[in-house]
Parts: sequence; structure tokens; C-alpha cells
Amino acid sequence: MTTRAYGVNAANESFQSMDIARRAPGLRDVQIEIAYCGICHSDLHTARSEWAGTLYPCVPGHEIVGRVSAVGSEVTGFKAGDTVGVGCMVGSCQHCAACEEGLEQYCERGLIGTYNGPTPDAPGHTLGGYSQRIVVDEKFVLHVRHPQEQLAAVAPLLCAGITTYSPLRHWNVGPGKKVGIVGIGGLGHMGVKIAHAMGAHVVAFTTSESKRQAAHDLGADEVVVSRDRAQMKVQANSFDFILDTVAASHDLDAFSSLLKRDGTLCLVGVPEHAHPSPNVGNLIFKRRAIAGSLIGGIKETQEMLDFCAQHGIVADIEMIRADGIDAAYERMLKSDVKYRFVIDVATM
Amino acid sequence: MTTRAYGVNAANESFQSMDIARRAPGLRDVQIEIAYCGICHSDLHTARSEWAGTLYPCVPGHEIVGRVSAVGSEVTGFKAGDTVGVGCMVGSCQHCAACEEGLEQYCERGLIGTYNGPTPDAPGHTLGGYSQRIVVDEKFVLHVRHPQEQLAAVAPLLCAGITTYSPLRHWNVGPGKKVGIVGIGGLGHMGVKIAHAMGAHVVAFTTSESKRQAAHDLGADEVVVSRDRAQMKVQANSFDFILDTVAASHDLDAFSSLLKRDGTLCLVGVPEHAHPSPNVGNLIFKRRAIAGSLIGGIKETQEMLDFCAQHGIVADIEMIRADGIDAAYERMLKSDVKYRFVIDVATM
Repeated sequence: MTTRAYGVNAANESFQSMDIARRAPGLRDVQIEIAYCGICHSDLHTARSEWAGTLYPCVPGHEIVGRVSAVGSEVTGFKAGDTVGVGCMVGSCQHCAACEEGLEQYCERGLIGTYNGPTPDAPGHTLGGYSQRIVVDEKFVLHVRHPQEQLAAVAPLLCAGITTYSPLRHWNVGPGKKVGIVGIGGLGHMGVKIAHAMGAHVVAFTTSESKRQAAHDLGADEVVVSRDRAQMKVQANSFDFILDTVAASHDLDAFSSLLKRDGTLCLVGVPEHAHPSPNVGNLIFKRRAIAGSLIGGIKETQEMLDFCAQHGIVADIEMIRADGIDAAYERMLKSDVKYRFVIDVATM
Repeated sequence: MTTRAYGVNAANESFQSMDIARRAPGLRDVQIEIAYCGICHSDLHTARSEWAGTLYPCVPGHEIVGRVSAVGSEVTGFKAGDTVGVGCMVGSCQHCAACEEGLEQYCERGLIGTYNGPTPDAPGHTLGGYSQRIVVDEKFVLHVRHPQEQLAAVAPLLCAGITTYSPLRHWNVGPGKKVGIVGIGGLGHMGVKIAHAMGAHVVAFTTSESKRQAAHDLGADEVVVSRDRAQMKVQANSFDFILDTVAASHDLDAFSSLLKRDGTLCLVGVPEHAHPSPNVGNLIFKRRAIAGSLIGGIKETQEMLDFCAQHGIVADIEMIRADGIDAAYERMLKSDVKYRFVIDVATM
């Protein structure tokens, strides 16, 4: 079964239309006609082989929404016509302690990524959502219960949404808690919306005064320009939790010093160049922690989608045509997007 | 009231005998005739003004044991003749959220250190346990219930003991948990003994093969030479908690990579030069944390002393005379002590 996709054949090539193979649905597979796919910074890193190990041809995309067109005979949770999503994973071992706890993202044998992951299917590695169709084990397919007209803006929830929702839940963000979101981009703008909906007092940190009104509009109770020492000082020792979505190397002490005793600064981005080494005294004298978090499990991803549907939360997106992926990447590198590009797969 | 002490008048001076003033016991004060005082590395840093802000004359010492010789009229918890201890703190605000939770070490207005802390008493800063007598608010005095013949070896529990006990308790170390203790010195040797008594599977990490048998003797179930990559690799992803007692700059990734998902690497020492910046991916891909912890609260310090008395735990010590403090400091700098020096105050 041949499917139209957009991908690259080498790290330095432009995106081009290509035909890829998709397997016929197995007993437990769901076949999905993709409507929209969000563009995540990981897509760019992988397509351009900025992380080790990119396999070509490379078809990125792990913020996938669409409609079910066929299901295997043993599929129980989905039927043709259902609106569904697929996120960063399409498989895991299903047997380790992490998988048994519904934390497939921490699978001890390694999660199977939606693209560039191992698979017996041709060409031997998974191909992602920049394509018209995908076939996925039903365990890794999510129900989308948002109104149909919001579907494109739901796509980024599958990565940017769950990457922020999971740590906010894990560290018990909710009413009575003061929460910081560092960086107001693809991840951060979701973090502000979700933490606000969870009932927390939300403070958005941005390097740019120009983002102040936009951050308030997203749901921030306060906006702090992190380059402004006076604004930062006022916030010292006051946060229960800070979610830091900035992957570029930056000073973590500026944020760890804002935590209350026993507070946690959680990082969700791996910087290309290491952050300056964090001040250990900052941790010791208030029993603070610096932690990390990776996307979220499948059960929690469904919970996140339902939470967002209930609260009317979607991403703020800019829709592009499939032939505009290269241009979108260049703009993403300049942070020139509010806040997520989504490919209209109908343009393929 | 004049008391004999050993102190220094400047950063580059040797210790000398000096007479210092102690206040007459106030209504809620306990007057203690000091029997023994342990030597902590913080004493050296302070005496030599290696941290900012040492006030002179400086009389260090915050691992104090002795006997009550007088109490104020409103003291209810102690009477003359009681065997008692004093640790790193002699005061705190008593009103902030931390103090109200019994976590005086995190007092939001700042704890009052047993030495070099602010006090209305002459000379305007607190003078510590390298002295024959001390007068302390009963809220900061602990009962010692060990046999009298163990008294000298109890002294280090007041700092080294509680600094390891508190994080081991806070992060729920006990039966069924695998715990690492990094560094087998003054702090680490207490960490091994306490974690073992808590029922955990204890792995001691040392840079020196020569410490293997000694670490087993302290109670370690396994001993790993941290410079040996093969030994380290076997331990990957297996620890619930690792307590890192090494204050010198070192590679934290070597230990964070040994944690299970959701495990914590807890630091209790502030390095003079920053550790190499920890790998963020190591945190993200297993939701691990790097945290810090500072001594322990008064209630918890009493709990620790009673726990150690029940389990027959004391420090391994080398007793010195008061005129041997300088020599002991030089040996401590070479880690040439198993595992804590204690001053016999009778030699003053």
C-alpha cells in the first residue's frame, strides 16, 4: 500500500514529495487517514541529522490527527470514522515495569518512536505523520473528542500538550499552587494554558517584554521578563513548581532560586550546549530539585486530550501547505511562529 | 561567666586556648558542660575564612555532647545531669512555615548557626563547641540516650549523622529499596550505617579499592569503585536513591545514570568549584531528579539520635587533644581520618 508523504533523503536536502509503503492493517492495527500534522522542533533535529542516528528516507511528524479508515479484526477501541490522534510513540515492549504502569515513554527496552524508530516494516524504520496515511497498533492511538473544526489545532497536543501536561500532573499542579512556565513557544504556550486550566496561579517567564500581553491572553496570571533582575527578585522563594521549556543553554539558577523549599524545576528540553552548571547551594539550602520529564504515557495522553476537550484547550497554530515545510523550519529556527506550525495534509 | 575555649583570631592563625564569655542561663536556657566535640569540615572552612563572612574570634564546633549543669526556671525538657547534644543550630525564628513544620534548618529568616551566627551575646556572634561550656535555648538541645561509654562517638551524629539521616528518611529509604552512598568519609560512613539500619540494600561508592573491606564492615551490601567503568555499568538504572556526600567537584552523570526512573540523586556538599554541568537527557529520559538537603530539623535530629541509640549506631572516631586541632585539620584535608576527629574537651 503506497502513501504520499513529505520527507528528506539526506540531512542537507529539502523536503520533497515521496511515496512510502504502509503495511496493511494487522489484527490489532488502526489505519488512519491523516488530516493534519504539527511540526515539532524534534522533526527538524531528526531530518537534519542534528542528533545522532537519523535513518533516511526520513519522514518526520508526531503530532498526528485524522480519521480511522480501517481496523484489524481484533481492534476493540476504534472503528472506521473515529477521529483519532497519534503522538510520539507507536510501540513499546508492553512488559516492563514502566509499560505496566502505563508509562510507555520510559519503556525499559526503549520506546518505538513514530519516526526513526525500529520496525519490521519497510524501509526498516518508522515513518511519521508528514504523510496521508499511517497504520498504528491501537494501543498507541488516542481518541480525539474536540469539535471537528478544532482538529488542526488539536494536533500539537499530541507532543507539546502532553510534554507539559504530564509534569504538571506529576508534580501535583492545581489550585493553591504557584507555577512558573519558562519560555512561551510551542511547549510553553501549552504549559500556560494547561496549568491555568488546572487552577494554578500561573507565572509566564519570557525574555521578551513584547510577549507580555500574549502570555496574559494565554492565561498567565503574571508575566515576568526573565532578563529583568528586579522583576525576578520579587519572585524569589515563591514557586511550588517551575516547568522550563527552553532547550537552549541558559542559567538555571535564575529559576531554581525562585522555588520554595521542596520545589522542583523540571526541564523538558535537552540543550545542544550544556546549561551552566547549576548552583548546588541553591538546591541544598531549600531542599530543591532539578528534574526532567519526557512526553507522557498513552493513558495520560488520553487523559490530557479529554482534559483539553473539556476545557476548550487547543494549540495556537499557523497552518501551512506541505510544500512550505522547509520555509516553516527556517522560521521556527528564528522562533517566528505563534506558536506551532501545522501541515494541512490535504495539500499533499 | 568565663569559659575556656579553643579558637582562632584570624584566618591564618593556629588554634589557641582562649577565654570566652557565656551568658548566664536565661529562663529557657540549658547550660551544658561539654565533654566532646566532633570536627566537621565546615569548621575548617569557617576558621580559615574559606567561605565569606567569618567573624573573629572564631570558635568552631557543632557536634557537641555533654551534661546539663543548670537550667532556666521555665525549662521543662531537661534537668541537671542529663546527657545532651547540640548540633548545627542554636536558634531560628520559630514563626515561619519551615519552623512551624519542625524544619528549622530551612528557617525563612535564616537559622542561627552554633558558631558564626548572629547573637546579642558577646562578642556579637555565636561561639561553638570547641569549649568547655555552652548555653543554648532548650528548643535546640537534644537528649542523648546512648550508653555513656559511647558518648564521644555520638558527637558526630549531631552533624554528620543528621545530614545523612534526614535525606534518607525524606526520600523514603527502607526495606526493598536500593540505595547508594557516594564517598566513604565523615558523612558517608554514617550514611552507610544508617541506610543499612533502615533496612535498605546499600551500595557504597568509593574511588579507592582499598576502602572496600572497610565499607563492607560499615554495613554496605555491595561496594563499587566508581573509577571502574565496568563495575559502574552493572549498576545502571537500578537505584531508588543515591546520597552523594562528596563536596569536591565531580561527574554527577556517573551517578544519575545509575538511578531508576523517578530516582533522586541528593547532594549534601557544596563544591568549591562547580561540578561539571549535569546531563539533562539523563534526567529527562527517566524522570530523574538532582536535589539537595541541609542537615535536619530539631525534631528529626532527636528521632535520628533515638534511632541510632536503638540500633547501636555511633560514628567511627579518632579522639584528639585540644592542642591537636591544627594537626587534625591538616590530616582531614588529606582525608586521613577514619572517619571523624573528636576533641576530648577534658584536655582543654
